[in-house]
Amino acid sequence: MSADPVLRRDVPDATVARLPEYLRTLSRLAEHGVSSVSSEELASAVGVRSAQLRKDLSRLGSYGVRGVGYEVDTLALEISRVLGLTRDWPVAVVGMGNLGHALASYSGFATKGFRIVALFDDDPALVGEEVGGVAIRPFAELPSCASEQRIAIGVIATPAAAAQAVGEALVAAGVMSILNFAPASIAVRGDVDVRRVDLSTELQILAFHAQRRSYAGELTEAVSQ
Amino acid sequence: MSADPVLRRDVPDATVARLPEYLRTLSRLAEHGVSSVSSEELASAVGVRSAQLRKDLSRLGSYGVRGVGYEVDTLALEISRVLGLTRDWPVAVVGMGNLGHALASYSGFATKGFRIVALFDDDPALVGEEVGGVAIRPFAELPSCASEQRIAIGVIATPAAAAQAVGEALVAAGVMSILNFAPASIAVRGDVDVRRVDLSTELQILAFHAQRRSYAGELTEAVSQ
Repeated sequence: MSADPVLRRDVPDATVARLPEYLRTLSRLAEHGVSSVSSEELASAVGVRSAQLRKDLSRLGSYGVRGVGYEVDTLALEISRVLGLTRDWPVAVVGMGNLGHALASYSGFATKGFRIVALFDDDPALVGEEVGGVAIRPFAELPSCASEQRIAIGVIATPAAAAQAVGEALVAAGVMSILNFAPASIAVRGDVDVRRVDLSTELQILAFHAQRRSYAGELTEAVSQ
Repeated sequence: MSADPVLRRDVPDATVARLPEYLRTLSRLAEHGVSSVSSEELASAVGVRSAQLRKDLSRLGSYGVRGVGYEVDTLALEISRVLGLTRDWPVAVVGMGNLGHALASYSGFATKGFRIVALFDDDPALVGEEVGGVAIRPFAELPSCASEQRIAIGVIATPAAAAQAVGEALVAAGVMSILNFAPASIAVRGDVDVRRVDLSTELQILAFHAQRRSYAGELTEAVSQ
């Protein structure tokens, strides 16, 4: 049983959502040989206000040292631990089209404790193919596989039309955390955690800045004419 | 020239980052036939505090009506307009492995004004193949293609080792907005907007909740023994 006091505390969802961002920035700093960082520097690298950052981190019990800031490695480990990334999370990917293949071979998962243990697709042309050392199986094998492999997280990478049925089958097999990449929302029991990934989110943020830049350019042109 | 007053206002990065999330939730509400929504309902569906939501939306000049809230369609259009999604954004994808293929055929882009106009890969086995009606070309054709097609956004979907060179080539070809899916950061000129997508972010948030759930389960078990 975990004796971690932070797990008993309430960490707001908005804070949880920012933790992967903090962790990513800390990893980048560590890669560049930075060993300590002030809350202002870290906040600015992440793109949040430093008061927000300090509040978020204090909820994890992490307080920087005045005049020194945070130790990069220590803070990264602390956030990893709170996020549960120091544990092992067996993951199944359902739908082995291009996106499924890309996810199954994505190197960013393994480094964070996400171990892809099962791949499913009903296309006979795909069944048996190995991706990253894991063979694709027919989806009917999900229930037995889920209990054998203790699958914790199911990733839906099917076309939109199949997403709901796959979600229901995952829940029936005892998978309580679902990451949905299909461009369709799914409805499942309230105690199941479903997160939907929209690959266009970051493009939308880029478009906002590009639009402002083009507006500024047009303004300069208009003024200089 | 745009006469849109909101483009002249400063919208903080943190607000911009939440706008795609608001828009996604509004689209889901509209799909379910909801025509108006209170700030509390919308905030709770998105997972932010309602004071935060009202503050964010007031920066766009959108104020809900007391006792009615926000009109779903109007607010969605307003956010789309601020994000620049009512314009047309020509996009190029570089690296046509599994992820590039998945992105090139991702239906979520087209509906938001992102038009994939060019695909690049140097693998002779891929050059000439059509994905979504666009033929894959050798990367050497980027400069001419970028100006002909007025490419606004470049998406890097190459392996980590190629990301930096591809980023530099995109900038040299005049592409000022880059979305980097490669598991490596790239360094380019400061006036270029680079966003990096880490596909494991949402998995990390799921892991946090799964860890809490398993802790609660262990606690119940321990108490009942």
